[in-house]
Amino acid sequence: MNQPPVRYELIKTCAQTGARRGRLHTPHGTVETPCFMAVGTQATVKAMTPRDLEEVGAGIVLANTYHLHLRPGHELVRELGGLHEFSQWHGPMLTDSGGFQVFSLASMNKITEEGVEFSSHIDGHKMFFTPELVMEIEQALGADIAMAFDECAPAHCDRSYTIAAMNRTHRWAERCKKSHTRPDQALFGIIQGGMYADLRIESAKTLTDMDFPGYGIGGLSVGEPKPVMYEMLEALMPHMPADKPHYLMGVGSPDCLIEGSMRGIDMFDCVLQTRSARNGLAFTFDGKKMLRNAEFAHDTRPIDESCDCYACRNFSRAYIRHLIKAGEILAAQLITMHNLRFTYRLMEGIRRAIEEDRLLDYRNELVLRGSLEW
Amino acid sequence: MNQPPVRYELIKTCAQTGARRGRLHTPHGTVETPCFMAVGTQATVKAMTPRDLEEVGAGIVLANTYHLHLRPGHELVRELGGLHEFSQWHGPMLTDSGGFQVFSLASMNKITEEGVEFSSHIDGHKMFFTPELVMEIEQALGADIAMAFDECAPAHCDRSYTIAAMNRTHRWAERCKKSHTRPDQALFGIIQGGMYADLRIESAKTLTDMDFPGYGIGGLSVGEPKPVMYEMLEALMPHMPADKPHYLMGVGSPDCLIEGSMRGIDMFDCVLQTRSARNGLAFTFDGKKMLRNAEFAHDTRPIDESCDCYACRNFSRAYIRHLIKAGEILAAQLITMHNLRFTYRLMEGIRRAIEEDRLLDYRNELVLRGSLEW
Repeated sequence: MNQPPVRYELIKTCAQTGARRGRLHTPHGTVETPCFMAVGTQATVKAMTPRDLEEVGAGIVLANTYHLHLRPGHELVRELGGLHEFSQWHGPMLTDSGGFQVFSLASMNKITEEGVEFSSHIDGHKMFFTPELVMEIEQALGADIAMAFDECAPAHCDRSYTIAAMNRTHRWAERCKKSHTRPDQALFGIIQGGMYADLRIESAKTLTDMDFPGYGIGGLSVGEPKPVMYEMLEALMPHMPADKPHYLMGVGSPDCLIEGSMRGIDMFDCVLQTRSARNGLAFTFDGKKMLRNAEFAHDTRPIDESCDCYACRNFSRAYIRHLIKAGEILAAQLITMHNLRFTYRLMEGIRRAIEEDRLLDYRNELVLRGSLEW
Repeated sequence: MNQPPVRYELIKTCAQTGARRGRLHTPHGTVETPCFMAVGTQATVKAMTPRDLEEVGAGIVLANTYHLHLRPGHELVRELGGLHEFSQWHGPMLTDSGGFQVFSLASMNKITEEGVEFSSHIDGHKMFFTPELVMEIEQALGADIAMAFDECAPAHCDRSYTIAAMNRTHRWAERCKKSHTRPDQALFGIIQGGMYADLRIESAKTLTDMDFPGYGIGGLSVGEPKPVMYEMLEALMPHMPADKPHYLMGVGSPDCLIEGSMRGIDMFDCVLQTRSARNGLAFTFDGKKMLRNAEFAHDTRPIDESCDCYACRNFSRAYIRHLIKAGEILAAQLITMHNLRFTYRLMEGIRRAIEEDRLLDYRNELVLRGSLEW
């Protein structure tokens, strides 16, 4: 039998926590885990060239199925050789399923067993996403990993709706599996179940029975308090297969990256780093810095004195503050570079701490430094 | 006596045209001329990092006195070590005098012998620029070359007003010279005289008598037809000192770069390349390309197949069109890189043609290829 396109290798688990040090092998290269995925919604991580991304240490990059279906269209991306060739990011990629966007960004019209009818957030035209169409789109985009189409119910759903949405997600996962045929792409299932621990467990069991090569955990970080999210993870993780990667979808603030890793998460993605950058907010190990603030006007230090990114090697906070106030694109470029580099360095620290069986200590050191205030 | 900070070296003149092949020696390095200066209005060439600029072959970069005085303030730039240290552009720099901006961008209130009263285009607050203040600002900014404060009269002024403005510019040039003391910075005079050939000649003679180390030609490309601009240059150039650089201010479309060079111009600057890029307009040797257009949707070729820039080495027109339509910053980054690289390659071509005494032939070849349609 052929080798599966994407394979997770567990290297070791942390003796202090439930964290896992592993490797994700994909057709476009291997990623050390736990890993953070930068978000390239429209086939570009905003304000970054692919070489900038490589320089800051990006491993695997995410792109959004919903956005790319709307613009430029998945047929065009396929015609142009797929996402890697189109965007010139030659490392591993993952596409989400559009489920989250359909339920959050578009104006949603109707959910049926067949699929979801919604209106484009760009021009309002009506569209209908089914598991089969989403598979067609993701296979055309051609990332290394495709996510199954799921129903992402809001945080405060009642139990009966959450059950209905979860079961629909399971049936859709089956349909996705049936229509997914691309041999060089892995299809991951998505666990739902809202804020109900027993439903999360049920979802994990049902999807595990379908034997996906990896599992997303969806429907968290959708408005619930963080302790509730951590509780869900703690309930769920013992029921996740150890030989498959665990991906906490849409989560990636510094505190959540470490708390998620401690609970056995292998993959994260988040727009926070890149979106904050465009608002002038920088992440540092001494806490976040709103670089627009007057306190930085005369500050000749780099954003973060411990950072090795291009922005920190060259530019003062005073200059970057000037760029922000003057509305210059270079501000977004430099702070994005830095925020991503910060995040990849944090992930390096997490991976090293797991290797040394001291992730809890590392977390506590970072808490004391103020690195995780978010 | 000390060596002057900026020195022009004439290498040869073209046998076919009046073009000059030279070198501009400055405290931050030597620039081959004729040269094009990218415009970094607010101490950044929009969408470019300094290393991007270096990669595309930028030599000398311009910054705007008016803008930097308003924001972040010249005192702050001085405190932070001057423009080079502030912006981390370590090559040669030139600051304009703010004259053009005061008369075009701000709402101007009153011109007197003393100076110009105007309102900031940012917050409307009243300011008063005098030759002495402009010298203080430019010396604080610390570029290699500072331009004298001039009155840039509109294109269609009557003769009597043009004479008055020109004479004021001459008196202000004297005052600039008197208050300019920075030993590592050269002060260039600015020739005015509107669209009157005899006044242009008079202005050149008056300023030449003051013995500046270089001369700007201001008040052209302010709305007059190009043939009128070329006529002014032809009248003026025989009266320009051969041992000093001739800088045609604010001019830089491909056709003007070559026509100006043919008439003895050594330095140009223009926002066209970078501003067009942000509007999706690319310069190529086959003419300009509006990359947003549908014709490029499926086009797998680079912007310009003959170009060696990062954008052309890696990305298709189809991808760049997608970035433009999706409003992505990367579009501005890539097209700016390309448009600047195109321009530096054009300048290389001009310099080579001068060396080979065939600038007229080169111009005609480019005209036939459509490279100069603008």
